[in-house]
Amino acid sequence: MTRKEKLLNSPQSCVDEALRGVVAANAGLALLRGHRVALRSDLRALKGRVALLSGGGSGHEPAHAGYVGAGMLSAAVAGAVFASPPPGSVLAAILTLWQAGVSGVLLIIKNYTGDRLNFGLALEQARAQGVPVAMVIVADDCAFAQPSKAGRRGLCGTVLVHKLAGALAEEGHPLDEIVTRVTKAVKGIGTLGVSLSPCSVPGCLPTFELPPGDMELGLGIHGEPGIKRLKVGSADEVVKMMIDHMTDSSSQSHLPLKSGDTVVLCVNNLGALSCLEMAVVTRAAFNCLEGRGLKIARVMSGSFMTSLEMTGMSLTVMRVDQEILRLLDAKTTAPGWPNLSSVDLSGRNCIMEPAKRASDKFSLAGSLSAVIRRALEKVCVSLLSAQEELNALDRASGDGDCGSTHALAVHAIQEWLSSHVVPGCPGQLLSTLAGLLQERMGGSSGALYSLFLTAAAPLLRECSDPAAWASAVLAGTEWQEVLLDGAWKAELGAQSTCELTARAGRASYIASKRVTLPDPGAVAVATIFRAVFVALAGSK
Amino acid sequence: MTRKEKLLNSPQSCVDEALRGVVAANAGLALLRGHRVALRSDLRALKGRVALLSGGGSGHEPAHAGYVGAGMLSAAVAGAVFASPPPGSVLAAILTLWQAGVSGVLLIIKNYTGDRLNFGLALEQARAQGVPVAMVIVADDCAFAQPSKAGRRGLCGTVLVHKLAGALAEEGHPLDEIVTRVTKAVKGIGTLGVSLSPCSVPGCLPTFELPPGDMELGLGIHGEPGIKRLKVGSADEVVKMMIDHMTDSSSQSHLPLKSGDTVVLCVNNLGALSCLEMAVVTRAAFNCLEGRGLKIARVMSGSFMTSLEMTGMSLTVMRVDQEILRLLDAKTTAPGWPNLSSVDLSGRNCIMEPAKRASDKFSLAGSLSAVIRRALEKVCVSLLSAQEELNALDRASGDGDCGSTHALAVHAIQEWLSSHVVPGCPGQLLSTLAGLLQERMGGSSGALYSLFLTAAAPLLRECSDPAAWASAVLAGTEWQEVLLDGAWKAELGAQSTCELTARAGRASYIASKRVTLPDPGAVAVATIFRAVFVALAGSK
Repeated sequence: MTRKEKLLNSPQSCVDEALRGVVAANAGLALLRGHRVALRSDLRALKGRVALLSGGGSGHEPAHAGYVGAGMLSAAVAGAVFASPPPGSVLAAILTLWQAGVSGVLLIIKNYTGDRLNFGLALEQARAQGVPVAMVIVADDCAFAQPSKAGRRGLCGTVLVHKLAGALAEEGHPLDEIVTRVTKAVKGIGTLGVSLSPCSVPGCLPTFELPPGDMELGLGIHGEPGIKRLKVGSADEVVKMMIDHMTDSSSQSHLPLKSGDTVVLCVNNLGALSCLEMAVVTRAAFNCLEGRGLKIARVMSGSFMTSLEMTGMSLTVMRVDQEILRLLDAKTTAPGWPNLSSVDLSGRNCIMEPAKRASDKFSLAGSLSAVIRRALEKVCVSLLSAQEELNALDRASGDGDCGSTHALAVHAIQEWLSSHVVPGCPGQLLSTLAGLLQERMGGSSGALYSLFLTAAAPLLRECSDPAAWASAVLAGTEWQEVLLDGAWKAELGAQSTCELTARAGRASYIASKRVTLPDPGAVAVATIFRAVFVALAGSK
Repeated sequence: MTRKEKLLNSPQSCVDEALRGVVAANAGLALLRGHRVALRSDLRALKGRVALLSGGGSGHEPAHAGYVGAGMLSAAVAGAVFASPPPGSVLAAILTLWQAGVSGVLLIIKNYTGDRLNFGLALEQARAQGVPVAMVIVADDCAFAQPSKAGRRGLCGTVLVHKLAGALAEEGHPLDEIVTRVTKAVKGIGTLGVSLSPCSVPGCLPTFELPPGDMELGLGIHGEPGIKRLKVGSADEVVKMMIDHMTDSSSQSHLPLKSGDTVVLCVNNLGALSCLEMAVVTRAAFNCLEGRGLKIARVMSGSFMTSLEMTGMSLTVMRVDQEILRLLDAKTTAPGWPNLSSVDLSGRNCIMEPAKRASDKFSLAGSLSAVIRRALEKVCVSLLSAQEELNALDRASGDGDCGSTHALAVHAIQEWLSSHVVPGCPGQLLSTLAGLLQERMGGSSGALYSLFLTAAAPLLRECSDPAAWASAVLAGTEWQEVLLDGAWKAELGAQSTCELTARAGRASYIASKRVTLPDPGAVAVATIFRAVFVALAGSK
């Protein structure tokens, strides 16, 4: 049993437990005894209205139980992981809704053979008992260039259909009108997915193998491989390729889009992309669509129709008009629906000007003597070559970025050196460095260096003649001794930190017996002292 | 560069692009030019009210930009990944809010040395310019048994603090009152995390190594290792250990909880747990807390304070009273806040009785002759031993669960065999099996078997004498020949499916050249025929 399966309690029970978890966490939901059915706990509110029922295999959470609520689904039927639910449960849900006094029941299903069979069987059985039932099949997949008998699959666009139909049902429209309007809207929805990893049904092996650096394009939501395998590109490249494929008019399953169309974009996490990655992809998709002259009305970005722990995402684009936007913006209590604003996104100005500082503290004017420049350059080179060593030390006790944080400081200093001359005095130099590090280095290190340099600057402020200062540095052996001594002590100090117990910072949270290497910050300071010494000694 | 970093466009640009993505997708947000600051696009609405500012390193999305909106934060400052932001940006945000006419600014930060330093510096600089600024430091970590100089870390509980302070600020309370009330609420919040994997800062190596089957307990949100390493257990075991640790009164950082207390539970995905796993863990945590006599008022379950792509979760528990619940339930437009209902969860009945079927179609009474029972038992054993082979075949063209789906049918039949006798005639047997498979097998296979058996049942309905039927089966060689012929044809048929192109079902979406193995469903049917033949031949 893998560790993931352990955490699921057991492959057999996980679907039931997950459903109980969702219902326990949301007061708007209830379970139907003896079935994997989540339904609105306020069924009486549905009296006289059309009820909406969806469902399908599990493993796509929050679909579909997460979309049960006022303004969305009335109930959702779950199968085992990636398996269509039994028609007996679909029928039980239909009859329970019917008993609550609804005027009819609309089944919204994804176009998969299993769902069509099982929901179709229940529909026939319910109709035979006199219940008015209709079915809308969502087929938003844009993967296939050639027609297939099974037709396009139903993917994340189904969630948008739940929302539109839910708003119409809430407004009290009759079953046939909802079917007509939703069927029309479905034609304007297209979805395409990519994945950087397979997923695995609990108790089973991963669904496919994917060599590092490859990705699958055009896959479904059950771990089935995609239509082709490609090299992973940047977010911008991947998104462009996806939108190209989705809108390619030579493909049987493309979504027709033209410049000037208004669309809603849904960026769907298939499971395990980080939220940081999702935000980067969202920006790429937004830019790509706007670059084609489309107006973007709303963006949803998050986990809406997942494939267990698959590291991938899908893009759904829906052509909209004001009426569809009104339905999309309508309130819902469904826990899986995001907190969207009802303001058009394209065309708004989203950059604000910052208020000016009361005083600009750090003058960057002046002239830097060749020797100080050389010392700074040497510090930069030394810190960059120590970057990986510092990261490695930091991994032992922190977040592994001490070298990278110092590299940020190096880049700031190098950039500044390339376009500025030396400040009038060493105090001013230290103030300038303090300002640079405060602005650009970040982290605790940035703040500490900045504090140290700011505190040291006034002590050197009397010296206002750079020429005198330079000659003092170059002539006196005293400076060299101080520096050599400093470098040596820093070196020893860094080694001695192995024995210390951290009292602040992230390392303080780790048992000291697990921290046996020198402190990366102390090693960085020693590196700086050594570089300054070498540069000044070489200048003599 | 790893494939993940490729998808981030670049380790250097990802934070800025992610922030632009979040702002592009949410009309309520804007960016401050030249800074990594997201702020409310309707700053004028804040005039005369207290503004709330938070922030910290990136990599914790949706924190903190996702919590900017009416009723939560006024602005959020982001640093590089896992690095505190520069005080210059914090100051720019404070001054911009001040210029918009707010009555004061409250900084809400997590207790990390870097954030204390950088936000602290900006606070002093803003105060020096006459802006009324205060700071609340969230320290909700329950990991440490012993006191440390750095104190408890700030973790996911910070999100709850944003919500409470946001509701108070929206209501127009003054700065000092908000500080007092929030400081009191913070004392009732505890958080503890576990992880099954490390995470890695883009451009850096993973922060720690974790052997398969191990997990870290009590870790922070920057990829730092936890306080101890344990074997992964079931959701129930892991959650119990976490709550035990969080509430252990001998630990310096425990959260005092007693039976009868009312709490809010937040189950936070640290990055890459699947939504299915999250729901199972949520149920376990709900049950564990209720088992200790606690009343659970609200549950949040999702991604609130992440650590990049870490496979782990944290539990946050907050003691609440009616006033805190009122603030938690207040409306917010922040995109990262979930769609919660404002009804108490504990104590409600969340099981509904299904409506009765109009007719119970499938009688399970009757007597099954020994030979039919043996045949069914043999089918069950054969399908179970073929389970892994069927899953493997299915992985090549589907979702890899064909064997597991058949195992569900096997369990249903075995259970039924253990408690029922044979139906009166073969037609009734087939109907019974059809009902069992429809109810319990699921998937397309369940529907197809059920359809086939239902269609076949009436053809055998005349035969109402089981004894006559049994003797016919046992005496006649005709049955055997038919079966042998059937088994042989099924075997050949299964092999010939290698040459077929799927027209329906999930396999139809995969290029046929990638499907070179026999169809798993056909292999299963051949297995069944073979088993029936062997059983009946052996009975003679």
